[in-house]
Amino acid sequence: MVKQERAVRTRAGLVRSAAAEFDRDGYAGTSLSQISKAAGVSMGAVTFHFASKADLAEAVREEGRAVTRVTLERVTAERTSALRAVVDLTVELTRLMERDVVVRAGARLARELGEGGSWSDVWLPTVRDLLDEAHRAGQLRDGAPPEDVTILVEYLTGGAEASPHSRPGAENEPEGPVGRLNRVWRVALAGVSATGDTGAAHSAPEARRAGEG
Amino acid sequence: MVKQERAVRTRAGLVRSAAAEFDRDGYAGTSLSQISKAAGVSMGAVTFHFASKADLAEAVREEGRAVTRVTLERVTAERTSALRAVVDLTVELTRLMERDVVVRAGARLARELGEGGSWSDVWLPTVRDLLDEAHRAGQLRDGAPPEDVTILVEYLTGGAEASPHSRPGAENEPEGPVGRLNRVWRVALAGVSATGDTGAAHSAPEARRAGEG
Repeated sequence: MVKQERAVRTRAGLVRSAAAEFDRDGYAGTSLSQISKAAGVSMGAVTFHFASKADLAEAVREEGRAVTRVTLERVTAERTSALRAVVDLTVELTRLMERDVVVRAGARLARELGEGGSWSDVWLPTVRDLLDEAHRAGQLRDGAPPEDVTILVEYLTGGAEASPHSRPGAENEPEGPVGRLNRVWRVALAGVSATGDTGAAHSAPEARRAGEG
Repeated sequence: MVKQERAVRTRAGLVRSAAAEFDRDGYAGTSLSQISKAAGVSMGAVTFHFASKADLAEAVREEGRAVTRVTLERVTAERTSALRAVVDLTVELTRLMERDVVVRAGARLARELGEGGSWSDVWLPTVRDLLDEAHRAGQLRDGAPPEDVTILVEYLTGGAEASPHSRPGAENEPEGPVGRLNRVWRVALAGVSATGDTGAAHSAPEARRAGEG
């Protein structure tokens, strides 16, 4: 039992160490021995848990998807208006990408390895559902069909991810990726929303929180 | 003289071959010998032109920046309204990223290597100047300050670049990255522009061209 718990801890630690290496050096630039060194465990312990670098990369991607799904469920559970939920979701995903090395590495691995789907495959279908609902509720401006707004959301979140300002170390900058995304949303919402805002009363605290970030 | 011309051709061919390898496998995943094989020249010829992989990567980045600057100058020279020029520029940059492996590899190398600036450093200052001009000309909506619209432009172009739909092979999809970007712009412009469009008469042909892409 104790042994099993230790094995689980080692496995989780390996996934996290591997994520840090993949995040920095990419899939091709990372070796199993480099991960074993970074995790402080023997190569034997690494290969006990993972037969290959590909297996370890898949574990990082799966863990990144799982963490992302938790955020997705929390935001949709707390939601008031559908359009507000979309904006909140992009902010929370950007925050997650900034703070969680496993999510960041998983997204990078998905880009580099191709097969198995991209990071946005986890959350974009939910965005599309929410935007269809917002459309039915009359929250979207005429001329802003849900399918086009979905692409906008994908690009804004992808842009926040790819921007040099969301690279590790950017936390020290006066304004992080979350603050920047909120400024972009304030401009873009006038093109998206029927009323120019998200029609939700709790948008002010969100904007304040972003201003601090 | 003939020898010199051949050397120049070999150098240019090497940069292009290296770009294709860097684009596919990233900096860490690409070796000089892999590039020599792909280019069909000896390792001696490679090292005659480039002392190291880092030198070759810098040559790819510089060539990518040079090609980007040509597009930048053409679009700003042809421009009618400043806001229209910004939209045209993002479309042309997305097209360039889709079609030119050197530009694509240069942008990837800039992301991976960090130092020396990102791809957007080449064109984002021009975007900012154009948006300041658009602001002075009353083309921007109140509530759409040039600095925030600049981030929007950065994210839309970065998103078009990062989207799985702009990966090589996406040309076969019914709608390419350029068509998708145009759809996003039709939504976002209502948040950006004082009049809801770019105020330029020649926006229709551009939209038609995008629809084909």
